[in-house]
Amino acid sequence: MIADVEEACGRIAPHVHRTPILRSRSLDRQTGAELLFKCENFQKTGSFKARGATNAVLALPSGVRAVATHSSGNHAAALAHAAALRGLAAHVVMPETAAAAKRAAAEAYGATIVSCAPTLAAREEAAGRIVAETGATLVPPFDDPAVVAGQGTAAVELIADAPGPLDLLLVPVGGGGLLAGTLIATAAHAPRAAVIGVEPETADDAARGFRTRMLQPQVLPVTTIADGVTTAMSPMTFEIMCWLARDIVTVSEAAIVAATRTIWERLKIVVEPSCALPLAAILERKVDVAGRRVGIILTGGNVDLDRLPWNS
Amino acid sequence: MIADVEEACGRIAPHVHRTPILRSRSLDRQTGAELLFKCENFQKTGSFKARGATNAVLALPSGVRAVATHSSGNHAAALAHAAALRGLAAHVVMPETAAAAKRAAAEAYGATIVSCAPTLAAREEAAGRIVAETGATLVPPFDDPAVVAGQGTAAVELIADAPGPLDLLLVPVGGGGLLAGTLIATAAHAPRAAVIGVEPETADDAARGFRTRMLQPQVLPVTTIADGVTTAMSPMTFEIMCWLARDIVTVSEAAIVAATRTIWERLKIVVEPSCALPLAAILERKVDVAGRRVGIILTGGNVDLDRLPWNS
Repeated sequence: MIADVEEACGRIAPHVHRTPILRSRSLDRQTGAELLFKCENFQKTGSFKARGATNAVLALPSGVRAVATHSSGNHAAALAHAAALRGLAAHVVMPETAAAAKRAAAEAYGATIVSCAPTLAAREEAAGRIVAETGATLVPPFDDPAVVAGQGTAAVELIADAPGPLDLLLVPVGGGGLLAGTLIATAAHAPRAAVIGVEPETADDAARGFRTRMLQPQVLPVTTIADGVTTAMSPMTFEIMCWLARDIVTVSEAAIVAATRTIWERLKIVVEPSCALPLAAILERKVDVAGRRVGIILTGGNVDLDRLPWNS
Repeated sequence: MIADVEEACGRIAPHVHRTPILRSRSLDRQTGAELLFKCENFQKTGSFKARGATNAVLALPSGVRAVATHSSGNHAAALAHAAALRGLAAHVVMPETAAAAKRAAAEAYGATIVSCAPTLAAREEAAGRIVAETGATLVPPFDDPAVVAGQGTAAVELIADAPGPLDLLLVPVGGGGLLAGTLIATAAHAPRAAVIGVEPETADDAARGFRTRMLQPQVLPVTTIADGVTTAMSPMTFEIMCWLARDIVTVSEAAIVAATRTIWERLKIVVEPSCALPLAAILERKVDVAGRRVGIILTGGNVDLDRLPWNS
């Protein structure tokens, strides 16, 4: 499957950014580590999701005319953008409760939005109906080998562009697509580096699953400011996690908020609260980084700029 | 004087960042131009002021033990940082009204802060007293050839790192140190590029001076959200402007706020409102950028993250 990640690197390179690594001397001094922040907030459509969606869409057989998905977040815009690259129609099922900005972003890239009730059953029913009616191919947000392979390209770049061998990679965990892709990429390109996933305490299905070695549901309702990681894992991403992750740790909401603000202040970049999970784990001492070179994937920058995460 | 800028490039290179250029395909499409944003918000101490202060401090003769300045803004932290590089003491006069964050930043780099009444007379009196008492060398925020030469290094990098010849450079104008340095650098490195300065309508001393060819005072009180450009020019920066600038344009407060938000949203970076003057001029059609390759210096990213510029 590492071949899939490497194929994805070549396939998506003309269509996505090779995002920069940013550093902060003051954060390095504060943590005693060398922290390398891979800025997927600068990625096309504002998140790493452009990688997986682009890889999946470009890998579709010819003859496909339309793609579909259900997503309330960054995968929607990413799939709309990827579909436009190939001139395909994109149908996106979004819960009525989705943020207006996310809806507008997907529409701006040319997607047709279908609203549904904010339940998983309603989403799946609506997506199934669209596939039946339009013949669209479903491209799920994470439970798809081509999507996972695409997400793994961020770690390939981070490992290649780092100023030396990485000791540790820290990755937020929602559905597990980014974690799984990072694990596959790291196993091949930096086999001595540990990969640790980070979740909110209030959305800890991956951490419970990792301990029990049983796929766990999310405990509803999920209440975290890290709205990008509220989804539960799939059997595929869970399996890869169990085989390859070093650990899964959880962090408090207060730490997520503080780490988000720290990234805005020190790195001068706009990132989503979900991005801040790895730094929150460092600041809460859930992972030991002293003396280590640590790669951190900042997942996206699509936030509501009408209010600050720490004032909400 | 271009030799001074080139000497500054070599002198400060080990101590400042060669900041990246960011682009936005959606902003390019919207404006019909190729916009290249030089990200001095990522610079040491969070603004381009690190360039001029570092150059001035490193150019001081040996035997100097201390430096001093008066500043309520980014020059204070920049001078403190530069002084620390050489192991010099730094004394900074700040008005009592200066933002607590700016004061804390200068203190964090090791400066001694002296508070004074918020008038130019009180500032100059306090600075003069410190120089008399401590023997410190005064490093002013812009009215200094070594500071101007240092600020010019940003344009040298922007011209060198652009993907082709620049047609236009857009620069915010406060005291005129960045404008003057950019003009000198551009005259030598991109002589066919026009340089246009941008000011708030409510702090338009440079625009009035450019039209009348007479150094103009700022009309007090200055009320603009672009707090980095409230100072009036000095005779030196005024003279360089008159000889070399193509034009000086002004923009409304509403345009500055809107452009600030646009930069945060599209480029995913944290910038001060003063940074947004050039984009505001483009969006208000004060400059014609269609079909042109345009370099824009984003001056700094030190904002109060307790409130958003567009909610204040």
